[in-house]
Amino acid sequence: MSTSGLPFDDFRELIRNLPGPDEASAKAVTEREATLTKPVGSLGRLEEIVAWLAAWSGKAKPHITRPLVAVFAGNHGVAKHNITPYPQSVTMQMVENFAAGGAAINQICIAYDLGLKVFDLALEHPTEDITVAAAMDERTCAATMAFGMEAIAGGTDLLCIGEMGIANTTIASAITLALYGGTAEDWAGPGTGSTGELMQRKLEVITKAVEFHSGHLKDPLEILRRLGGREFAAMAGAILAARVEKIPVIIDGFVATSAAAVLHAMNPNALDHCLFGHVSAEPAHAKLLEKLGQTPLLDLGMRLGEGTGAAMAAGIVKAASQCHNNMATFEQAGVSNKAE
Amino acid sequence: MSTSGLPFDDFRELIRNLPGPDEASAKAVTEREATLTKPVGSLGRLEEIVAWLAAWSGKAKPHITRPLVAVFAGNHGVAKHNITPYPQSVTMQMVENFAAGGAAINQICIAYDLGLKVFDLALEHPTEDITVAAAMDERTCAATMAFGMEAIAGGTDLLCIGEMGIANTTIASAITLALYGGTAEDWAGPGTGSTGELMQRKLEVITKAVEFHSGHLKDPLEILRRLGGREFAAMAGAILAARVEKIPVIIDGFVATSAAAVLHAMNPNALDHCLFGHVSAEPAHAKLLEKLGQTPLLDLGMRLGEGTGAAMAAGIVKAASQCHNNMATFEQAGVSNKAE
Repeated sequence: MSTSGLPFDDFRELIRNLPGPDEASAKAVTEREATLTKPVGSLGRLEEIVAWLAAWSGKAKPHITRPLVAVFAGNHGVAKHNITPYPQSVTMQMVENFAAGGAAINQICIAYDLGLKVFDLALEHPTEDITVAAAMDERTCAATMAFGMEAIAGGTDLLCIGEMGIANTTIASAITLALYGGTAEDWAGPGTGSTGELMQRKLEVITKAVEFHSGHLKDPLEILRRLGGREFAAMAGAILAARVEKIPVIIDGFVATSAAAVLHAMNPNALDHCLFGHVSAEPAHAKLLEKLGQTPLLDLGMRLGEGTGAAMAAGIVKAASQCHNNMATFEQAGVSNKAE
Repeated sequence: MSTSGLPFDDFRELIRNLPGPDEASAKAVTEREATLTKPVGSLGRLEEIVAWLAAWSGKAKPHITRPLVAVFAGNHGVAKHNITPYPQSVTMQMVENFAAGGAAINQICIAYDLGLKVFDLALEHPTEDITVAAAMDERTCAATMAFGMEAIAGGTDLLCIGEMGIANTTIASAITLALYGGTAEDWAGPGTGSTGELMQRKLEVITKAVEFHSGHLKDPLEILRRLGGREFAAMAGAILAARVEKIPVIIDGFVATSAAAVLHAMNPNALDHCLFGHVSAEPAHAKLLEKLGQTPLLDLGMRLGEGTGAAMAAGIVKAASQCHNNMATFEQAGVSNKAE
């Protein structure tokens, strides 16, 4: 896409006019499903997943051959308020850990044979402190969304969206509070382990940030640039690019979902190509998924980010696709079908 | 084990004296978990799974290198009452479909690199009609349990227990009704798709069978031989052998769980080495898991059997093990740990 106009204008236009599902491919999946050697419907959500893959990939036999986990890492000025148990330097250290293969997401990618790309979003230049300023100017936010769109240009047929960033559950809570109202307590949780005074300061920071920007929060893209961080903008861009490129998406936990929610606030169909992989133990995630009308695939009590919940779900999606594409039909196997 | 005594006697002795967990290995896992590059507890149930693997494999670093799905197939005299939408011949046809690689379980095993063995339990000789006779005599039941024990002798480090058998949800309902009381309606569901008159007959058959044997149902092994089928006896044997051989087990859906429940009724610790992979859409399964005090790992709306739910869970267990064994520690990765 061109980003030559006013920075946000092209995105507004794109989000208003997102492509719809390929109904013919979804129908072909449903028809083939009924011929496979099992009672109809007996693979439950696996069958729904394959129809969804078909609808959003445009393929009647949706194979998953190049699954990709994209992890976007950002740093946040707001971290200076001593709201997290880990120092900000951990964001970069974890990016190096991803590169060295030592993190949880590396192992899950090995387990399910998923590709992994990690995007360092100017970690040496944290966004502004959202309690006293906008996180980014419009040009930076739009450029970071465009960067997120480019991130998947190498090609994939199943995109898992994840993130890393010390203090970014605070950002996610500020975004969701701005989008849905309520109080900081409604949308905040311990993140990596904020308790006691850390948690008290986290709540104060979220409240203060949303109050500071309160005159400018009717426009979801303004919420994104004022309260968000670079990884949120990049995730929003990646989700949009996947829609255009017919790539089904799996969204990770609370932080990734809050970036997705910005798009949903602009177009209630914007996330129809997205599956929500895992409901985080971070308490606000279940509430946010409810706002989006989404039922997560897994509930394993995880709360790590890094795309780990999405990657676990990708393992399920791969198996679903494998079943649909490769099972024998009643006719092929010589199995008697149900007497109708 | 010897099976030279009275057929059930050796099993009674074994079930009374099952080996316990390896607490030292479980403790080693918990200690290592705290050193890995993530907030403690942030992998949720994946962390619990690895501690469970350690406790029941006796290995402080529980690698999964030879996972195995064992599918036990049996036929049932009770099928003659026209209680299922598929003819009894489908059991053998599906065993042939497994051998040819065309079934759902074949595909899930490919997706997660799981071994698969299918055991045809005298399919040409269905058990007796349980509405008018005991399914098996004691010698047959004990021999089939012993066969189930031998089934895993080829070695595995994670055993998934599944089954195939037209009419075997009727058998499972009869067993659970006998174990826990209530009515046939409490424990019966559509199985492969029994509705209307099929379902009405299914309920009558379950009720009649449990009434016919009502004077002999205090002993869980009597429930197994009178109401059970060969695949139930074999699954019970396989679960016991795995305990003795330090092999953690994943149990599939309603039918496999009802076989496991027979052991639980004899010793409430008998299933401590078992994980329940997936709660079936068959309504009685959730109720049965509650009786066993178990929380299933997945809820994907599946209701197929064949070990498919257990195999899906094995994908999760493999990833959990991969994370624990291969993640970097904070020290190795040079990542700053939480300020304590």
